[in-house]
Amino acid sequence: MIPEHVLSSLATETDSKLVLVVIDGLGGLPIRGKTELERAKTPHLDRLASKSMCGLVEPLGCGITPGSGPSHLALFGYDPFSYEIGRGVMEALGMGIHLTRSDLTARGNFATIDREGVIRDRRAGRIPSEKTRELCQYLQEKIPQIGEVKISIHPGKEHRFVVLFQGEALKDDLSDADPQKDGFKAKMAEPLSREAEKTAEVVNAFLVRARQVLESFHPANAVLLRGFSKVPEIPTLQQRFKIRPAAVATYPMYRGLARLVGMEVLETGETLKDEIETVREHFSRYDFFYLHFKKTDSAGEDGNFGAKVKALEEIDRVMPALLRIKPHVVVVTGDHSTPALLKAHSWHPNPLLLHSAYVRPDRIRRFTERDCQKGQLGTFPATSLMPLMLAHGLKLKKFGA
Amino acid sequence: MIPEHVLSSLATETDSKLVLVVIDGLGGLPIRGKTELERAKTPHLDRLASKSMCGLVEPLGCGITPGSGPSHLALFGYDPFSYEIGRGVMEALGMGIHLTRSDLTARGNFATIDREGVIRDRRAGRIPSEKTRELCQYLQEKIPQIGEVKISIHPGKEHRFVVLFQGEALKDDLSDADPQKDGFKAKMAEPLSREAEKTAEVVNAFLVRARQVLESFHPANAVLLRGFSKVPEIPTLQQRFKIRPAAVATYPMYRGLARLVGMEVLETGETLKDEIETVREHFSRYDFFYLHFKKTDSAGEDGNFGAKVKALEEIDRVMPALLRIKPHVVVVTGDHSTPALLKAHSWHPNPLLLHSAYVRPDRIRRFTERDCQKGQLGTFPATSLMPLMLAHGLKLKKFGA
Repeated sequence: MIPEHVLSSLATETDSKLVLVVIDGLGGLPIRGKTELERAKTPHLDRLASKSMCGLVEPLGCGITPGSGPSHLALFGYDPFSYEIGRGVMEALGMGIHLTRSDLTARGNFATIDREGVIRDRRAGRIPSEKTRELCQYLQEKIPQIGEVKISIHPGKEHRFVVLFQGEALKDDLSDADPQKDGFKAKMAEPLSREAEKTAEVVNAFLVRARQVLESFHPANAVLLRGFSKVPEIPTLQQRFKIRPAAVATYPMYRGLARLVGMEVLETGETLKDEIETVREHFSRYDFFYLHFKKTDSAGEDGNFGAKVKALEEIDRVMPALLRIKPHVVVVTGDHSTPALLKAHSWHPNPLLLHSAYVRPDRIRRFTERDCQKGQLGTFPATSLMPLMLAHGLKLKKFGA
Repeated sequence: MIPEHVLSSLATETDSKLVLVVIDGLGGLPIRGKTELERAKTPHLDRLASKSMCGLVEPLGCGITPGSGPSHLALFGYDPFSYEIGRGVMEALGMGIHLTRSDLTARGNFATIDREGVIRDRRAGRIPSEKTRELCQYLQEKIPQIGEVKISIHPGKEHRFVVLFQGEALKDDLSDADPQKDGFKAKMAEPLSREAEKTAEVVNAFLVRARQVLESFHPANAVLLRGFSKVPEIPTLQQRFKIRPAAVATYPMYRGLARLVGMEVLETGETLKDEIETVREHFSRYDFFYLHFKKTDSAGEDGNFGAKVKALEEIDRVMPALLRIKPHVVVVTGDHSTPALLKAHSWHPNPLLLHSAYVRPDRIRRFTERDCQKGQLGTFPATSLMPLMLAHGLKLKKFGA
């Protein structure tokens, strides 16, 4: 492993343009002998792969299924075990909430408790999203702050919401205020350090107050909070690699992740074409573009093999438009696998191609899991990708004399 | 990674003979579809590869372009990030200067400064090497020492030279006395620790004195110094692996690097044949030979694809002579790639073959980047090579019972 400070000391600005295409949940598993990629017709990706260096990229490590946070951090060159992004922060990013370094976030559930404070339903009968919006608005009016700490409540889907605690010196080392099982007593948050004691008091005052406010709102007569977290202190991509990075993504979570590592998040449209057009428009102003395509992952999560194949073919069709912009380095890969067979993220490594004038092409014939595995990169860790992209953009100086 | 002390504890002396052939700047990039190795006719290397285990060796890490110092350290089994060799030391080694552990070295430039001490030309108009020789001799006469510290000045090419400061307790944690850009004031060296304060005084006294001596020698009326460094404390190969190593190399830098890790540097002739003859002559006295061929790198640096192809074919022709000596283990590889396409060292991994009676041959057909990549070693780190060579020479005992 190359020490981080060595890598940073080698980074140098050049005019070359790098594009990282992340196809969410790219990798799959065979159903009737073929994976989604093997089934899909992807002539443009195949042709690009034949002129590229290829491999399988392992998001976190052998056998580890990644969430979107760590898998993206790894692709962006960060050790995903050093920089953890808490559940509260991920939820907030997914809602498009801009977080500052001082904000404490938590993921919340509306829940049903009985007179003894025992949880009868952790999801309050999965109340509709609309009801959650109303409840959040009501809570927000009734509890605008706890002492000096501003409270900010954001409704999510069904029974879910996010709370932001905004104040001075808030800590995130708190235990979950949620036993995560029905039949247990609703818990308070416990401080996991001396420094977190004041924060626990604030959080618990909020929980008590919320229960009072919601008393008559059966089945949503309590709130549970978990995943207390703050934005981690992450050095930006500019600081680490001297690049000017921009992100093109339609989903709030990926836009938020990109912002966390210092990317400029560009406004873009809904379609793949719009996303590529956005890259084209801003091509002169940045030298690193992160381009995110979401549909494949959703199809995989739904267990819809055919829909995932179609989504891959859709992406293939826009590749020529991307290549016409003539980036110096193009990488196409995934953040993690989402095989339709598993209906979930999985640990399987993802196909990757890297195209530039300075590769020894592997001459593989198709952009699939099993073809890319034969490439020169073999199975390699996601954290190696950034140094590799920078090198091919001639953005890393020589180490030593 | 195998812990260093474990590896050392397993090392054991045997009669087997290991030969490591380092073809400088071996790896290349395709021009019109083929790399230098793919274009070259190398029947002997190809035949050897077909009976060997093969792979691509990565000098320092994914995407990192190595200087010759770290890339050789890695091949010799040293973590190149733990043992850094400074620029001054590398220059001194390149000039064939024997360094002791107490010598402080710096790389120097003759430069032009104006009356205000502002640098007008960092290279004094690239004065000819002959002029530099004269100036160095004059400076040497005028400044034989600073206090107790002996000064030793060695001319290099054009405006370049090396200064040795020889005395007690000299430190190398000094900032460069060189702003590295024209239009800035010539700087003094600054101590980067308390212990380095005395050394900084000596160095700066030399700089002031040199400017006085050179005052009338416009355009070479000042000296700039950078890369202050001492020989790092490196355990020798004998200590680490219980081998008796010898080096056969024609260029001073590689002879110096070999000496740094405890190799005996053998006198040899100018040609490849001479180098192999030197191995033959000394074959009984050592059990590890490092054999260095330089021409490929120079051709690559010149961007001369054809010359690199020819240099590779020349090496191929002497392989039978090497094999006739019957070493037990032969490795052929490079320290780094120098593709003619890039006219510079690059980050690309290098082909490697390891031949011994104890391999499962990969049966690849050619000794090229893309063929070796299909070998059993895949892409693997240079620091793994020494354990692998030792193992095939039966020079590593079993670990554990």
